[in-house]
Amino acid sequence: MSAQQYANANEKYVAGFTQGDLALPPSKHTIVVTCMDARIDPAASLGINLGEAHVIRNAGGRATDALRSILVSQQLLGTKEIVLYHHTGCGMLTFHDEDIRAKLGNTPEAQGIAFLPFGDLEQSVKDDVKYLKEHPLVLKESKISGWIYEVETGRVKQVA
Amino acid sequence: MSAQQYANANEKYVAGFTQGDLALPPSKHTIVVTCMDARIDPAASLGINLGEAHVIRNAGGRATDALRSILVSQQLLGTKEIVLYHHTGCGMLTFHDEDIRAKLGNTPEAQGIAFLPFGDLEQSVKDDVKYLKEHPLVLKESKISGWIYEVETGRVKQVA
Repeated sequence: MSAQQYANANEKYVAGFTQGDLALPPSKHTIVVTCMDARIDPAASLGINLGEAHVIRNAGGRATDALRSILVSQQLLGTKEIVLYHHTGCGMLTFHDEDIRAKLGNTPEAQGIAFLPFGDLEQSVKDDVKYLKEHPLVLKESKISGWIYEVETGRVKQVA
Repeated sequence: MSAQQYANANEKYVAGFTQGDLALPPSKHTIVVTCMDARIDPAASLGINLGEAHVIRNAGGRATDALRSILVSQQLLGTKEIVLYHHTGCGMLTFHDEDIRAKLGNTPEAQGIAFLPFGDLEQSVKDDVKYLKEHPLVLKESKISGWIYEVETGRVKQVA
């Protein structure tokens, strides 16, 4: 889309915008971590409204990649809970590091990036929850849960 | 919230869910990069519907932190455009690395993390757009724009 098209779409959003007075700290003290996938609306899928939760999204919804943001959220903005979900049909199930590094020309820059794909969806969620529960900088009192989201149905089920 | 509360909220989402047949690649070939801030609905603010764009979110909406995800999106899922916005009232304007490292006990783990705060909102957007335009692994033909979102009004304005 062109910049003008985004600006026009935003004009409509502004015309209907009524929540300009929300506080900075998330009112439900929650962080949602999930994938960047275009088919997911993380807040809506969990019944979360504007102002209630931080939403961290990256390729796969990987916890390691979300760590910096989680620490900022916990230390500066008082969140106490982490809800992490990965999803069916994820692109991260379809490649290995060497595949994308080859596409990128196998340059030293490409070799230096861990792209964090995974081969088993449920295990990837369990691994990420374990990583957060055991990380020395993540608050020990955090409530951390792991889920799988089905892009076909919109349903989440808890697996960790 | 409890796991049961999320599951209950999700049941309502599932009951109204009608978009289970969307394709994996984003139909608008677009990536939106922005902050995890609870007050932002990135897709809605730009008139983007489910299935149309990858949405990457982290503390501040920093491009360096989003690089892995952007490369996965471009190389595997064919996106051609990056729309990045930071926002007014961002928590990243309120601290320095040494502040959060002190809160984390100044451990070696905490010392090893760059938390990526910024002192000037508009400059941070320009810096991130420049970083992406100059990065050797980001597609040269990418259309990259930088914006500021006002949490008070819902309005975006382009600054890069």
